[in-house]
Amino acid sequence: MLAEIRSLNEECGVVGVWGHPDAAQLAYYGLHSLQHRGQEGAGIVVTDGEQMSISKGEGLVTEIFTAEKMQALSGTGKAAIGHVRYTTAGGGGYQNVQPFLFNSHTGGLALAHNGNIVNANQLKAQLEGQGSIFQTTSDTEVLAHLIKRSGYSDVRDSVKNSLSMLKGAYAFVIMTENQMIMARDPHGFRPLSLGKLGDAYFAASETCALDIVGAEFIRDIEPGELVVINDEGISSEYFSLSSQQAMCTMEYVYFSRPDSNIDGINVHTARKNLGKQMALEARIEADVVTGVPDSSISAAIGYAEAAGIPYEMGLIKNRYVGRTFIQPSQSLREQGVKMKLSPVRGVVEGKRVIMVDDSIVRGTTSRRIVGMLKDAGAKEVHVVISSPPIKNPCFYGIDTSKKEELIANSKSVEEIREIIGADSLTFLSVEGMVEAIGRPFPGETRGSCLACFTGNYPTEIFEYEREKTKC
Amino acid sequence: MLAEIRSLNEECGVVGVWGHPDAAQLAYYGLHSLQHRGQEGAGIVVTDGEQMSISKGEGLVTEIFTAEKMQALSGTGKAAIGHVRYTTAGGGGYQNVQPFLFNSHTGGLALAHNGNIVNANQLKAQLEGQGSIFQTTSDTEVLAHLIKRSGYSDVRDSVKNSLSMLKGAYAFVIMTENQMIMARDPHGFRPLSLGKLGDAYFAASETCALDIVGAEFIRDIEPGELVVINDEGISSEYFSLSSQQAMCTMEYVYFSRPDSNIDGINVHTARKNLGKQMALEARIEADVVTGVPDSSISAAIGYAEAAGIPYEMGLIKNRYVGRTFIQPSQSLREQGVKMKLSPVRGVVEGKRVIMVDDSIVRGTTSRRIVGMLKDAGAKEVHVVISSPPIKNPCFYGIDTSKKEELIANSKSVEEIREIIGADSLTFLSVEGMVEAIGRPFPGETRGSCLACFTGNYPTEIFEYEREKTKC
Amino acid sequence: MLAEIRSLNEECGVVGVWGHPDAAQLAYYGLHSLQHRGQEGAGIVVTDGEQMSISKGEGLVTEIFTAEKMQALSGTGKAAIGHVRYTTAGGGGYQNVQPFLFNSHTGGLALAHNGNIVNANQLKAQLEGQGSIFQTTSDTEVLAHLIKRSGYSDVRDSVKNSLSMLKGAYAFVIMTENQMIMARDPHGFRPLSLGKLGDAYFAASETCALDIVGAEFIRDIEPGELVVINDEGISSEYFSLSSQQAMCTMEYVYFSRPDSNIDGINVHTARKNLGKQMALEARIEADVVTGVPDSSISAAIGYAEAAGIPYEMGLIKNRYVGRTFIQPSQSLREQGVKMKLSPVRGVVEGKRVIMVDDSIVRGTTSRRIVGMLKDAGAKEVHVVISSPPIKNPCFYGIDTSKKEELIANSKSVEEIREIIGADSLTFLSVEGMVEAIGRPFPGETRGSCLACFTGNYPTEIFEYEREKTKC
Amino acid sequence: MLAEIRSLNEECGVVGVWGHPDAAQLAYYGLHSLQHRGQEGAGIVVTDGEQMSISKGEGLVTEIFTAEKMQALSGTGKAAIGHVRYTTAGGGGYQNVQPFLFNSHTGGLALAHNGNIVNANQLKAQLEGQGSIFQTTSDTEVLAHLIKRSGYSDVRDSVKNSLSMLKGAYAFVIMTENQMIMARDPHGFRPLSLGKLGDAYFAASETCALDIVGAEFIRDIEPGELVVINDEGISSEYFSLSSQQAMCTMEYVYFSRPDSNIDGINVHTARKNLGKQMALEARIEADVVTGVPDSSISAAIGYAEAAGIPYEMGLIKNRYVGRTFIQPSQSLREQGVKMKLSPVRGVVEGKRVIMVDDSIVRGTTSRRIVGMLKDAGAKEVHVVISSPPIKNPCFYGIDTSKKEELIANSKSVEEIREIIGADSLTFLSVEGMVEAIGRPFPGETRGSCLACFTGNYPTEIFEYEREKTKC
Repeated sequence: MLAEIRSLNEECGVVGVWGHPDAAQLAYYGLHSLQHRGQEGAGIVVTDGEQMSISKGEGLVTEIFTAEKMQALSGTGKAAIGHVRYTTAGGGGYQNVQPFLFNSHTGGLALAHNGNIVNANQLKAQLEGQGSIFQTTSDTEVLAHLIKRSGYSDVRDSVKNSLSMLKGAYAFVIMTENQMIMARDPHGFRPLSLGKLGDAYFAASETCALDIVGAEFIRDIEPGELVVINDEGISSEYFSLSSQQAMCTMEYVYFSRPDSNIDGINVHTARKNLGKQMALEARIEADVVTGVPDSSISAAIGYAEAAGIPYEMGLIKNRYVGRTFIQPSQSLREQGVKMKLSPVRGVVEGKRVIMVDDSIVRGTTSRRIVGMLKDAGAKEVHVVISSPPIKNPCFYGIDTSKKEELIANSKSVEEIREIIGADSLTFLSVEGMVEAIGRPFPGETRGSCLACFTGNYPTEIFEYEREKTKC
Repeated sequence: MLAEIRSLNEECGVVGVWGHPDAAQLAYYGLHSLQHRGQEGAGIVVTDGEQMSISKGEGLVTEIFTAEKMQALSGTGKAAIGHVRYTTAGGGGYQNVQPFLFNSHTGGLALAHNGNIVNANQLKAQLEGQGSIFQTTSDTEVLAHLIKRSGYSDVRDSVKNSLSMLKGAYAFVIMTENQMIMARDPHGFRPLSLGKLGDAYFAASETCALDIVGAEFIRDIEPGELVVINDEGISSEYFSLSSQQAMCTMEYVYFSRPDSNIDGINVHTARKNLGKQMALEARIEADVVTGVPDSSISAAIGYAEAAGIPYEMGLIKNRYVGRTFIQPSQSLREQGVKMKLSPVRGVVEGKRVIMVDDSIVRGTTSRRIVGMLKDAGAKEVHVVISSPPIKNPCFYGIDTSKKEELIANSKSVEEIREIIGADSLTFLSVEGMVEAIGRPFPGETRGSCLACFTGNYPTEIFEYEREKTKC
Repeated sequence: MLAEIRSLNEECGVVGVWGHPDAAQLAYYGLHSLQHRGQEGAGIVVTDGEQMSISKGEGLVTEIFTAEKMQALSGTGKAAIGHVRYTTAGGGGYQNVQPFLFNSHTGGLALAHNGNIVNANQLKAQLEGQGSIFQTTSDTEVLAHLIKRSGYSDVRDSVKNSLSMLKGAYAFVIMTENQMIMARDPHGFRPLSLGKLGDAYFAASETCALDIVGAEFIRDIEPGELVVINDEGISSEYFSLSSQQAMCTMEYVYFSRPDSNIDGINVHTARKNLGKQMALEARIEADVVTGVPDSSISAAIGYAEAAGIPYEMGLIKNRYVGRTFIQPSQSLREQGVKMKLSPVRGVVEGKRVIMVDDSIVRGTTSRRIVGMLKDAGAKEVHVVISSPPIKNPCFYGIDTSKKEELIANSKSVEEIREIIGADSLTFLSVEGMVEAIGRPFPGETRGSCLACFTGNYPTEIFEYEREKTKC
Repeated sequence: MLAEIRSLNEECGVVGVWGHPDAAQLAYYGLHSLQHRGQEGAGIVVTDGEQMSISKGEGLVTEIFTAEKMQALSGTGKAAIGHVRYTTAGGGGYQNVQPFLFNSHTGGLALAHNGNIVNANQLKAQLEGQGSIFQTTSDTEVLAHLIKRSGYSDVRDSVKNSLSMLKGAYAFVIMTENQMIMARDPHGFRPLSLGKLGDAYFAASETCALDIVGAEFIRDIEPGELVVINDEGISSEYFSLSSQQAMCTMEYVYFSRPDSNIDGINVHTARKNLGKQMALEARIEADVVTGVPDSSISAAIGYAEAAGIPYEMGLIKNRYVGRTFIQPSQSLREQGVKMKLSPVRGVVEGKRVIMVDDSIVRGTTSRRIVGMLKDAGAKEVHVVISSPPIKNPCFYGIDTSKKEELIANSKSVEEIREIIGADSLTFLSVEGMVEAIGRPFPGETRGSCLACFTGNYPTEIFEYEREKTKC
């Protein structure tokens, strides 16, 4: 359903807790604060030091984890890992909900993954040829089989050995009965932060999860780093010598929560700066600035502030649209029945409106919103996008459409403007974006991934399968 | 659960549709857009001209009306009325969910009510003494019994006769098999707007519901007016000669959706003006302005704009907190686990923060939020309230706490400031509020109700029962 | 679904418990044992002496009363009444599920009813004309309104006065906050037994409920008797001087559980005697006797024993068919997919089979079963019915079809035999039935109602409405 | 819950359908008729020739397969396999519900199993040592891994090769996208019958499933036989040269449905013969014979017929006890609240009762039933068991208690009689049982397994793990 508003789907989120009697609950609150990263499913695995148990399901965190389920998990834990999963078109289903928990007579193995392994299919075919049976259609399971076949006496060694075979984007939280292992791929595409909560450790994809549970931020796990926590304490090593950061820029532009800090940069501030930068680049005459809720509000406020044009609430989001909302029939939509987003007539009527959005993927959503604003009486609608045109698909964990569906891949800005029916359309420049966020270009220290804008992929790209479940 | 964040509970919302083949669906979308006015329960009654049928339940609109239920309702309709109900502490339950549908061998009667009848208990005792059996504990049912006992051959006359016995606040949408009747009390405490959708009529508590279904706004039902719609068309008459408007000011300050217009005044604009007025009255030196989401964002932006201080997102609301969210245990809360609202450390740390909120009822919420901001590193927190102190309970459909629980009833502003731990606390003046909203004082044409601030109640007040289910 | 196997629907069942700390639970187990009397819905009302609370729902007792609901009810009680309701075609729904609980400012009133008031519509029209609003479409509610309008200071007097206006069949269990009242109509159509459980009283429609909770049988409530139990003890009086028993014969033939005793006659024994009597009257040469499960097994065993022909399990009932069973499509049924009842080929193949059933209503079920047995290879199928032909509808609480749908109303035995495809068809004689059960003819002391067989109705019959919800 | 009445738990049941457009539905009705073989869970896998899809869940067939789920499955199929699973104490859960469906890039594999592999643990440890990851704790999964590692180009060869490594009891129904394979272990412990339905094939654990779907019985799959059905037709071969039948005797005595034929012997008839044989061996003077419902009714009728003592319904089973039934508290049970079984006082009071049951495992159930009958007034209770004492655990798919829990393992018949409080206790002799059923002793052609009575196990027995999930 989100696809109607957003063509750029959220990725996944992970949490890990070690050494707290309420580990399962802390994982629950952490996942809850990461819900924006995935609404399809969620799961928690806990260990009491001797045995792991799992609870997972499809839906939102609050739907899956009933009081009874949490009660059942709670008794058992001293550590827990958790995962939220985003909505995929095909694939999916209960079996693909993470964490995965694999039991054997020599002990269990639980995995939660954010990212996408680009050579998963190659590895899977090899493993199946050797008689392995896969339980899911997820790329994540490949790591479990690699670990099991590595056969080192210490799981840490098996993990290290297995990670060296993976290519792509990953932030892993792995757990056995008595240790927790975290790892980020050598490019560090996906964030993973570590905090402390008294004597306990708390790791999560975003710092907002740390804040929500009251954990103190220590540092981010680094690209190519492997961190192991167990009853002996915490230790770290690097499994890759050639780590070079390529943090996903879209984490700032769209995905992450505004209250998270990624690599020390606050997301709301980054977005407001993107808006301010836009005001410098665009210089449009207008009466009001409005943002497409929720993700573009910060940028719109930044734009308004820098341009000296009042920010107004020209679009409002219907808060209670969920899984069970009944879509209006085609006939009712034609009669004007709206769904998740409504224009505010009292604000836009007779006005020249600057509408700030974070990105354009296929263009259909922008066209719909521009149309809404015009129907509500806006005299002019100037669309301002706080990122450059997306011309290339992402292979690192974001469900962009296929290359041929990306409108900016084949159309010029003027063509897009015409399609979406705007009076003007301005994208942020790549340089302006890099400047506003404050992270260097790819290749430099603390560099960014700009592949979806520029086509320069930091890793080798294997055959890309649209059908595969990514996270 | 909302009570933790808000001590001022939402009231109810009503819709009515006449003459549309998709009447039930339109009622559904209308109720959905009024969901902020009540989350406890919702219902829809449809008529096909010969028979009425009902579907209702506890929970959110999208939870209650499954595709199957809507399918079942849809076939039957050419007209429909609907209701959303707010959360009451006591009382409640399925039986009190509206609309009420009463069948008899001479025909049915359906009622949906927003407001509160202040002499309901007196009337109910009289009716029970005469052998009437009440099905609910709601004040609304009294009207049904009065109508049934009126015994006029035309329901319109029975309704008129019965309304003359009621005192208090009401916006009624009433339906029989073949007509729909709308009425507002002589003071017009609660809003009720009428629109057109092709040949069909669409009425709702707020204009946002008209917008969502694409209906064109015609006019508001007037205080003391009775509007009847049936297959012969629409007609209007006044059942009260002494109507004098006293529109609830809190509809602007807090209750209504920002995209609604009440009596031609846009709510977002009114709130922004309240914020601007505050900036004139407060004149505080600070680094950032932030609003308590969602209802205070507009006022905060107005404040920032007028004061020339940047608006920042210093507080963020957790979007997925619903009925099934598991509350953190006391121990976890003490360790810092948060729930619905989080401060954004990256924004407030080391800053002098102006925190704009719409009202203070018991003070506990404000104290919690101020504490959060300080814990997140705010150097100073200046609380600015975009309305005057609430010193008196409401008897007209708003679930304020009892008089003795209203902190401003017994404490001075300075005492409240100390209790909530703010560096300064400023309430808007009554005059400033009236000016900013742009509605005259009580007693004048298009006057306001300011009773909760001033204690001047527009009607006689009978014994007040805290236990009674109001709407 | 039951309608496919049985055309004669079950009626309702009631229980009442007074003076036991586990009153709600005892009501639950009692209702559970009366489940055969109604599967549509069930409810329990408890009182703690000051307040009554209710829990009810649609479905089976075990579906409605979850552990949580029972927990909620349990704390409150010292007394409870309960009801199971049978499946009706039209009408029905949650609102008609009993007990009914009516609250007023002078106290509550709860009612549970088994039977049918034949002048309910007349009374209801009168009451509605006087302004009463009915909550249900049930005849039972009439009594509540009569009681409320009676206006005696003691509810017992109001009940007595109101019962005198009712005509028809009823076994009532009524409760207020501090007393329980039981009453049977002057003809005693429906059973109601009283037992003791330590110091507590336990009343139920059938003695099997007494057995299941370990209560000792005291006696049956008598026709025209009103029994009141409260903290002062138990008292009895007669509200009708002209009581003359007309116990429903079908309670023995079909409705009641085989382990119940009705007026001291065990139901299984009565059925076995009906079977023995049939063997005397029918004298058919055959290889095996089989019964249609479950209700005809006793009669079949009686037949087999008396006739000296082996009893075999020629038909088997599928135990797990419930509300959610998916009916085979027409095409699959034509290919032979069966549902609730299967013939046992190994038992009937090549045999002359006597198939004992308790009644024929529309004949469709009998035709289907005879067909099944023949398809499974039975050489001959002789249908033996352990009651006389049903030629007249029941107005006393049994949902027989309309007069014109009763096959025996217009067809001769030979015509019915041909329709159902049996090799012979024998009904029990009225005299044989009366003899076998051991209750006298109507009009005598402890007489029976034979109206459905003979057309002699013990009461005046008013306009009969098929649509009305009976119980 | 069944454990209270029965200490001998049901095993599992399987079905397979090939070549019918309604394959999924036929599997549903077949599983439904096998519900007595397992109530814990059920599943169906369908293939449309190119892809397999699965639907499974915990609970009863009618609970798991909603109309929506069946709809979803239906479109896809031309073939289907299904499974019902019995309740295990430990283990269990969704993941262990069969059929199992394993997907790989070379195609899928679905398995349904009735029985128990006695060397599963040994094989599993070997496979895990080689890097295999198991998804379940079921012995059945071992076969999937063996097949996957066999690596023959034709699945039939991989299956044959893998079956040669298994020891124990099994009736397998295996499916790939384009063929269905059925196999029984060389001793044929568990039944598996094949039928035809027009051009389609229908296989099931019991013939009652064939009857319910209208399929014509062809023959039983033979011990050590492998039958393959695909679009080319049906073919058969033997994968074991040393097959020697050892059909489980308890299938006749207790497990199977009375309307099934096992190896041509009707189960109801076998039980009636067991009862007749008992009458010859026991020769007890009594007034009535009664059976413990449901499984002992046939034997009781046989006994009554042979002994010339009337059969009466002295015990009645409460039909509506399901998963959600609330167990009476200890205190209520002590006060006499009963659950699933009630004695019929009207039948047993003052009588000498012969109570026929099929087996005694731990003795607790028998003691409870004898107690009930005595409490209901039985003068004498003579317990007659239609099988010999069970002295040894079963390793072939029946969940008997551990050896030390089997009362007959350590107690004499007289000791057991005293424990259960009966006036006499008679077990059937092994010779009498073999004679009555009509199957030869073990070692002969069409021999039986009598291991639980005699301790002579037909196969080697490996370490026995109580915890393992068997089926």
